Amino acid sequence: MSQALPETIPTTLFAERADAVAAAARELSALGWTPATSSNFSMRVDADHAAITISGRDKGRLGRDDIMLVDMQGKAVGTDARPSAETELHTQVYRRWPQMNAVLHTHSRTQSVASRLFAKAGMVRLQGWELQKAITGYTTHESVLQIPVFPNTQHMPELVARVDAWLDAGKPLHAYLIDGHGIYTWGRDMAETRRHLEALEFLLGCELDLRRLSA
Amino acid sequence: MSQALPETIPTTLFAERADAVAAAARELSALGWTPATSSNFSMRVDADHAAITISGRDKGRLGRDDIMLVDMQGKAVGTDARPSAETELHTQVYRRWPQMNAVLHTHSRTQSVASRLFAKAGMVRLQGWELQKAITGYTTHESVLQIPVFPNTQHMPELVARVDAWLDAGKPLHAYLIDGHGIYTWGRDMAETRRHLEALEFLLGCELDLRRLSA
Amino acid sequence: MSQALPETIPTTLFAERADAVAAAARELSALGWTPATSSNFSMRVDADHAAITISGRDKGRLGRDDIMLVDMQGKAVGTDARPSAETELHTQVYRRWPQMNAVLHTHSRTQSVASRLFAKAGMVRLQGWELQKAITGYTTHESVLQIPVFPNTQHMPELVARVDAWLDAGKPLHAYLIDGHGIYTWGRDMAETRRHLEALEFLLGCELDLRRLSA
Amino acid sequence: MSQALPETIPTTLFAERADAVAAAARELSALGWTPATSSNFSMRVDADHAAITISGRDKGRLGRDDIMLVDMQGKAVGTDARPSAETELHTQVYRRWPQMNAVLHTHSRTQSVASRLFAKAGMVRLQGWELQKAITGYTTHESVLQIPVFPNTQHMPELVARVDAWLDAGKPLHAYLIDGHGIYTWGRDMAETRRHLEALEFLLGCELDLRRLSA
Repeated sequence: MSQALPETIPTTLFAERADAVAAAARELSALGWTPATSSNFSMRVDADHAAITISGRDKGRLGRDDIMLVDMQGKAVGTDARPSAETELHTQVYRRWPQMNAVLHTHSRTQSVASRLFAKAGMVRLQGWELQKAITGYTTHESVLQIPVFPNTQHMPELVARVDAWLDAGKPLHAYLIDGHGIYTWGRDMAETRRHLEALEFLLGCELDLRRLSA
Repeated sequence: MSQALPETIPTTLFAERADAVAAAARELSALGWTPATSSNFSMRVDADHAAITISGRDKGRLGRDDIMLVDMQGKAVGTDARPSAETELHTQVYRRWPQMNAVLHTHSRTQSVASRLFAKAGMVRLQGWELQKAITGYTTHESVLQIPVFPNTQHMPELVARVDAWLDAGKPLHAYLIDGHGIYTWGRDMAETRRHLEALEFLLGCELDLRRLSA
Repeated sequence: MSQALPETIPTTLFAERADAVAAAARELSALGWTPATSSNFSMRVDADHAAITISGRDKGRLGRDDIMLVDMQGKAVGTDARPSAETELHTQVYRRWPQMNAVLHTHSRTQSVASRLFAKAGMVRLQGWELQKAITGYTTHESVLQIPVFPNTQHMPELVARVDAWLDAGKPLHAYLIDGHGIYTWGRDMAETRRHLEALEFLLGCELDLRRLSA
Repeated sequence: MSQALPETIPTTLFAERADAVAAAARELSALGWTPATSSNFSMRVDADHAAITISGRDKGRLGRDDIMLVDMQGKAVGTDARPSAETELHTQVYRRWPQMNAVLHTHSRTQSVASRLFAKAGMVRLQGWELQKAITGYTTHESVLQIPVFPNTQHMPELVARVDAWLDAGKPLHAYLIDGHGIYTWGRDMAETRRHLEALEFLLGCELDLRRLSA
């Protein structure tokens, strides 16, 4: 491992986070949600650092050495490895919410197709599904869960600004789609984040099925 | 295991039921029918008790310690663990039919989508499928198998009352869907209940496909 | 094993056939093509006998003891076990074609849905698919492969008669669907029969997809 | 292994290539992309030779002995084994591009259906998908990725000529579909080729879904 750590981060702490990120990557890859080395995953290490997947690796074969340290501006710390181009979207979550400790970004076919289909509307509006209750804070299928769809861009600051604008408008945000691309979601720990991701994949799939059947 | 047992229930009996429930949960989870910690599963232990999954656990990693004892009103017995909110729907089955010994409730995408699609009609009507014969009592594809779809609610007594009303009207009931939610089915033992669940998932999937293709 | 064998059948021969049938059953079950204990599988043992799955067993857990011997009229030989109700459809193949040595009958969702969709037309007509070449005797995608769809019935002699009528009319037959039910196919050995089954499942799925997309 | 090697090819080199080809075949078969013994796979061994799958083997069980050596005209070298009928399409890639070292040809349901659907248009036009960036040379979702669909034929020189004509017209080519058949793609090493194949399968699936949903 060519990852040097700041003195304030114990080796075991980084190793623990790196292992958790790599395990999530392997499991989500086995579901087919990370095609062709896409997708990226991270966990907060402390107030100023996160552990994130190194760019371009096969997510089905990820180990501890495929995870690197970045600061909260998304810059590499103690390594020559290149973090994902989308690292800023992860650190934005850690900066805005001190209580959030894991971020998952995947590219399933359902997520990509839903993002294209709902891009014009700018959001997916979910209501009437029991599984909305899997999102922290939702206690009934009667609630409305809105997942915004932001336009895709290769220039990350634009996306960061769109997320900021949504939040600054005071709208709740548990996840967002990027058009033609995939989903971002987060949580207080990896288990909650996995539950959010699984629930959103399921709900998007149900919405697509209903549209096919109601045509 | 923090589960204390009444004197009338041998440790080995509870352990056997708990293991059977946990094994079913793991296998159904591997099929993707229990997204985001949803779904619940139980087996009768004796005339007055059932073993049921503790609320909120990941169904793909379930073991004996994730199963708890409840009485026939759905109250926890000998444990501080919290049973699923929907426990009353399980104990209703055990109360109404002394011969029924297992109840499975899952949330597959097919089940959720079918429940939304057929909610207005209030039922799914199955006819002409050989696999209807997998439901105990059905001996020909020419029979009609009706699966009611009840409105979803977070207030369990409403659902219990709807099931009671259906049965009190003298209509046969082998399973029911809840709108936007999932399916409940049961049987004399776990094998029969699994067979019912597998057959219903298959038949609902076939009906959805036929509608897509006949549009 | 409560299977007694006629003197003319060596124990090792029956065991070999039973193992091959059980292995095929487990593998096809893992693909989800045998829902809810449905489907049945056989191999010829000699000119007068076949080894076939015992009725009602879970096809995902099948072993040598779940296979029994029948004669060419589909009657049990040397065992009290009950053969599948559809055994006559297997032995019909062995009687009509001395060169055929394996028969597979599965119930995949694609097979069941295709059988309903094409029941009125009485056949599925396949043309233009490279994979038609996986059916023995077909050497080009330009050929036409016809799979008849027979009406379902719980009375096997009716089905036997429909198959006989098709063949007596001089039409080629490599497989047939039964409406709302599943598919039968066969071959000179298990590998050829598996190849036929896999190709037909694939081709039926492609046809359904094309219809969905061309609507 | 009945494969004799020219003096210029070390045994370990051929073995390494054969193992890589067999491993790719097994993994792609597990995804269901090689139904009924279809599909073929190769790697370049040196400037004049490639290692390619022997015709008709079950791709899910492939080992080193199922791989043979061919020259750049697609003729067997040092073995009596019969190479795939489509070997010329592999060697065409190696002849035209010295930097290309692996070719994968699969038959997934998505590939087959997309090829039929887009046959009339003569190409699939992909734009707006983040995953286009998985194809070497593409750096933004705003690029246009064209995958031609060539008519199927059992006469390989016709296909070779169509590929040559496309390239001689100066159009970029990273993969092509054959109508009713499957896909060919290639890359500088097996990892890049696998990434191309996975991305194209994903993108074709997304396009089919979008068409179903936009109808």
